[in-house]
Amino acid sequence: MRFVYSGKPLRLYGRRLLVFSKSSLDYTDIAVDKASQLNAIFFPRNLAVIGVSSDPDAFGSRFLKALIDFGFKGKLFPVNPKGGEVFGLRIYPAVSDIPEPVDSADIMVPAPLVPQVLRECLAAGVKGAQIYSSGFSETGDPQRAALEEELKAIGAQGIRLIGPNCFGVYCPAGGHTLLPGGDFPRESGPVGFISQSGGHAVELGRQARGRGLRFSKAVSYGNACDVNESDLLEYMAGDPETKVITIYLEGPREGRRFFDLVKATAPKKPIVIWKAGLTEAGARAVRSHTGSLGGEEAIWRALFHQTAAIRVGSLEELADTAEALLVLPRHTGRRIGMVGGGGGTSVAATDACAAVGLSVPPFDDSLRSRLAEILPLAGTMMRNPVDVGVPLVPPDVFRRVLEMVAAVDFVDTVIATQPLFYLLGGHFPMPLPADEIVRMLVEVPAAVRDKFGKPVVVVLPVGGEEVEMAEAEKGRRQARDRYREMGVLSLPSLDRVARAVANVVTYYEKTASNQ
Amino acid sequence: MRFVYSGKPLRLYGRRLLVFSKSSLDYTDIAVDKASQLNAIFFPRNLAVIGVSSDPDAFGSRFLKALIDFGFKGKLFPVNPKGGEVFGLRIYPAVSDIPEPVDSADIMVPAPLVPQVLRECLAAGVKGAQIYSSGFSETGDPQRAALEEELKAIGAQGIRLIGPNCFGVYCPAGGHTLLPGGDFPRESGPVGFISQSGGHAVELGRQARGRGLRFSKAVSYGNACDVNESDLLEYMAGDPETKVITIYLEGPREGRRFFDLVKATAPKKPIVIWKAGLTEAGARAVRSHTGSLGGEEAIWRALFHQTAAIRVGSLEELADTAEALLVLPRHTGRRIGMVGGGGGTSVAATDACAAVGLSVPPFDDSLRSRLAEILPLAGTMMRNPVDVGVPLVPPDVFRRVLEMVAAVDFVDTVIATQPLFYLLGGHFPMPLPADEIVRMLVEVPAAVRDKFGKPVVVVLPVGGEEVEMAEAEKGRRQARDRYREMGVLSLPSLDRVARAVANVVTYYEKTASNQ
Repeated sequence: MRFVYSGKPLRLYGRRLLVFSKSSLDYTDIAVDKASQLNAIFFPRNLAVIGVSSDPDAFGSRFLKALIDFGFKGKLFPVNPKGGEVFGLRIYPAVSDIPEPVDSADIMVPAPLVPQVLRECLAAGVKGAQIYSSGFSETGDPQRAALEEELKAIGAQGIRLIGPNCFGVYCPAGGHTLLPGGDFPRESGPVGFISQSGGHAVELGRQARGRGLRFSKAVSYGNACDVNESDLLEYMAGDPETKVITIYLEGPREGRRFFDLVKATAPKKPIVIWKAGLTEAGARAVRSHTGSLGGEEAIWRALFHQTAAIRVGSLEELADTAEALLVLPRHTGRRIGMVGGGGGTSVAATDACAAVGLSVPPFDDSLRSRLAEILPLAGTMMRNPVDVGVPLVPPDVFRRVLEMVAAVDFVDTVIATQPLFYLLGGHFPMPLPADEIVRMLVEVPAAVRDKFGKPVVVVLPVGGEEVEMAEAEKGRRQARDRYREMGVLSLPSLDRVARAVANVVTYYEKTASNQ
Repeated sequence: MRFVYSGKPLRLYGRRLLVFSKSSLDYTDIAVDKASQLNAIFFPRNLAVIGVSSDPDAFGSRFLKALIDFGFKGKLFPVNPKGGEVFGLRIYPAVSDIPEPVDSADIMVPAPLVPQVLRECLAAGVKGAQIYSSGFSETGDPQRAALEEELKAIGAQGIRLIGPNCFGVYCPAGGHTLLPGGDFPRESGPVGFISQSGGHAVELGRQARGRGLRFSKAVSYGNACDVNESDLLEYMAGDPETKVITIYLEGPREGRRFFDLVKATAPKKPIVIWKAGLTEAGARAVRSHTGSLGGEEAIWRALFHQTAAIRVGSLEELADTAEALLVLPRHTGRRIGMVGGGGGTSVAATDACAAVGLSVPPFDDSLRSRLAEILPLAGTMMRNPVDVGVPLVPPDVFRRVLEMVAAVDFVDTVIATQPLFYLLGGHFPMPLPADEIVRMLVEVPAAVRDKFGKPVVVVLPVGGEEVEMAEAEKGRRQARDRYREMGVLSLPSLDRVARAVANVVTYYEKTASNQ
């Protein structure tokens, strides 16, 4: 939808728009969903890319190339006053020269030129723009801050803005990737990511490629001169494609609104928040990065206490938790049955669970005697955690131990350390080829889960740090992908598994009344 | 040295030995250095391997094979009542059948058979034994605990024991590897590792292979029926080959002695301790694993407060800290100058530093204006951390920024994020071949360190999680090895770099009076 009257776009008044009907000069006052405004940016039918040069290696051209490689479905209109051609596309001297209406613009001209370009977009009826250019308020320079105010004023006249100082929007269903993201996954997925940092958006997208996380939308919104974290949260709360909302935040622009949105949304749709810049030094870095205020630790503690939002401390934990939320069922519980290898590892695992509030209940005599029937006394432990005596546990024994542990009523969730895995490098003789044992072992957790209806989560450690072990690392990643195909969460360390499980359990406890 | 009288070995009385001179029946009371007793285990001239079968795939045979592969220099005497032959070696029916004196024995027969085997060793004048067998006090079974008491009593008659329920000793200079460790590095190094967990000993050795950590001795001592953590600490304190002592501990047998040894040793030789089992559940796991008591958190806090020992929370941090201690100079300081890429990353880095007590002092105007001469205003940040505007910083600009930061007097230590690294996968066009840029970048930190005499530490993240990116991971590991060759510490994440640096700085602050 585009609202024009006599060829000029209409002004937005707050969140309402005056709409003139074509048949009369009367007008109706209707609520305009911000979502439809943002959709011009997420799902543009065509796109102006402003600041592209005819040199294919220049910055803007490379981004244009990334959009082409990513497979943008609509028309792409490169813009540069010098004109010319790049990648077989005509470069238009100005947005006004483009012969058809344009939904959205990607802008990467130097900061001082952005206001003029943006005015041209507004005049041409462009509904949304992403301003990748840096050099605004984040520099701390008052003139640069004034430049940003100018953008804001132009935006208020009827064009929604992402940025400046951002990497923009990644929306696979809309065919739009962020900067640089030509090789990001083409498939959509259930995760939304709202990121005040472009680097983190790129980093998460990059990690996601490998770990199978897929996004509905990921947005690096930078200085947020118009669209901010609250707008994006509101959008994702109402977006049926987004099942889990993840947020990297330095400091929200509208604190109260953000709080209210989190409180209202989290019970229905999980929200995972990494709040950075809470130390004094971190807050200073935040001011320098996006010009926002880091805020007090106490305020943030209150937010996490009063809402069901899940607090994480790193991008890694954010991604782990999103993955866990997508895979683990609501009845995932705190009482962990742990099956692993090595006594020392079991101690560390128990500590790791206790540190995040998971319990590792002692096994009763009945379970211990059942375990003693299939495990040798020496080199194993039949308490919780069970030490199955790696590295030589046969796959069928591993399976039976998992089944025994999953069967007892005082265990909600099973954590299994993938045995034998570090042997992939081939340093120990084995009764079967390593890849065959691994194949057998990989199928066990899903089978046990299905038999007992309890989640089984797997620790799948990196096999070796040597240059020559990069091949074994490939094998580990293949096993991880296989687990994922079977709907089994696997992460490389006990600490990460324990934290992700605890985050999910806490979320479901907090939202139990919504069940 | 071997002490016998009328063909029988003499008893040890505490730490003193009655020595009968050959020429008379008078005796001298001399102090016996425990080190020389342990040296029979660390540096055996020859070795009985008891519990080997003629089946080359049986457990004991595989360990014997590991010793052969590892390159044990002396003679190996496999022992099994059934006799036979394996790997071209004659299997002796009993230790007493071995035709020459034996320094040490590796024992892996089932637990109930160990006392008899050990008595035979004692009778044959064997000076030390490693008992790999499990199935003693750790099972919680009183009969099994009594079996362990029996070992202890035999040991007191003149044979030093490592174990039972352990993976034994890895001592490259002595040609002895632990179980299973046929592929562990042959070279000795400066790190000593005392581990109450065999799994952790194997795991650290495995990691060490890749990350270039080399060991003087690593000992998995299990139930410690004779040689315990204090004995080993005392040994390593006096061992000139060991420069850094690392310890994984569940609960020491002689708490006071352990404390006194740590207090006396740490100022002269760094001691890195991972104390596990401090949570209630963890303490229960400890009892099950090695039958020891986990101890109170308060006691351990006091130990770390009252001594210069460095406390770590994981095997990873233990290894990172050992590496950092070996590489970073005494003048490594808390005031960090950070050069990196991406504003979000910088915020996280600042938070990570603040969390471990490192400071990130703001840059003064003078430094900022010098940086502004070589960095563009847009897309960079000239505060601390400096955002050099990845991914496209040219190597010479990266170098000059590092030099400017290293030059100021309010920065002690520089942390640099290796730029461009995640591009190794080839997802972005670059002005030079990726490996050439990486080569140039890798040389910068060492050059800056040498020019300004300040440590430069590098964050070198994993480049991608996909199966197909395993090749790029190989490249990352090669860069890591190259850094190591140049004496530059590099670790895969900001958190790990910050923690390792903070641990080293704290150690040098605590021990400043020893300078």
